[in-house]
Amino acid sequence: MIRGCFISLEGGEGTGKSTQVKALANALETMGYKVNRTREPGGTPGAEVIREMLLSGADEKWHMRTEALLFAAARAEHCAKLIGPALERGEWVISDRFIDSSRAYQAGSGELTDQEIMTLHSVGSGSLMPDRTFVLDLPEVVAAKRAEARDRGDSDRIGGRDSGYHRTVMARFRQFAEDEPDRIRLIDASQPVESITELLLNNLGDMMA
Amino acid sequence: MIRGCFISLEGGEGTGKSTQVKALANALETMGYKVNRTREPGGTPGAEVIREMLLSGADEKWHMRTEALLFAAARAEHCAKLIGPALERGEWVISDRFIDSSRAYQAGSGELTDQEIMTLHSVGSGSLMPDRTFVLDLPEVVAAKRAEARDRGDSDRIGGRDSGYHRTVMARFRQFAEDEPDRIRLIDASQPVESITELLLNNLGDMMA
Repeated sequence: MIRGCFISLEGGEGTGKSTQVKALANALETMGYKVNRTREPGGTPGAEVIREMLLSGADEKWHMRTEALLFAAARAEHCAKLIGPALERGEWVISDRFIDSSRAYQAGSGELTDQEIMTLHSVGSGSLMPDRTFVLDLPEVVAAKRAEARDRGDSDRIGGRDSGYHRTVMARFRQFAEDEPDRIRLIDASQPVESITELLLNNLGDMMA
Repeated sequence: MIRGCFISLEGGEGTGKSTQVKALANALETMGYKVNRTREPGGTPGAEVIREMLLSGADEKWHMRTEALLFAAARAEHCAKLIGPALERGEWVISDRFIDSSRAYQAGSGELTDQEIMTLHSVGSGSLMPDRTFVLDLPEVVAAKRAEARDRGDSDRIGGRDSGYHRTVMARFRQFAEDEPDRIRLIDASQPVESITELLLNNLGDMMA
């Protein structure tokens, strides 16, 4: 049995991640792959309960180190009960966010280091990494528009943080793509939906049998 | 300002920890100390929510690594928002369970190592350790009686695990006391309540101004 492929989509809010997870999964299923669509935080009943705790309420509800541990807890559950078993069955997994979000958001706060986030991932999930990660990138002006939406209260506990924080998060995602060009591909998310999906598929050619 | 003292009480279920936390706090308050009584998992509103998640439901609800991360998350919250600030104000803190419970119960499962538990504690709570820890120890026959109560469904998600697990946990607590005799004192919990409290106070003489 050949282990399945694990793909994560990353980026700021409203960059079209969930749309692309769906479109990419459909395309791969048409090609005959069995695909599991999932998301973080969440993906299993227990992890979804942790998601609700993390994303609701006021920013000061959790200390940043508590937040990092709760994300790692949800991820441990997700890896042990959904992602790991699916990959072992030879199926593909596409996740809306994974470890790089913790590296960008929780370490991006300045309270924790990237090394600490990766240590939690090691203890919690045996350092399971995606085979390929796509960072959906939008120009600053579009990001600013999203920030306006956030200011109207359309966002959750983490999305609602100030625009300086979200700029830092995006800068970190771009840096990850520069540091790990083999795993992480930076994708211009201002293109039409279909063009992006095609680009993702082109960037998966080396993964396909 | 002199930093306050941090004391934890450890041991299996029904060994009288919460009774002794109360009695010890009263005794110290009579002596003029300001004392914060608390417990783990829990101690702050957020950590108490995590407690409820951890202790309710079926054993298979959480993977053991998820469980360890959730305990570490509750502890990070507890240290950042209650224990740390109280100690800095020069007050005493007495906690019903702390890090040694994670070392005994989560590492005691065989799924995680003691080193991994301490790594989570380092990232989550800066490795904050109690100044003194009391392990309340009961003879096997009394522990067996508690196990019967558990079998009648009087226990929570973790307490309800089989007696072999609880024997391992108790053996680990005794080993900790042997390994760290300066911090951890093994206390015979089969004595009358007042005698135990007196014994605890005698074992705190070096902490008092």
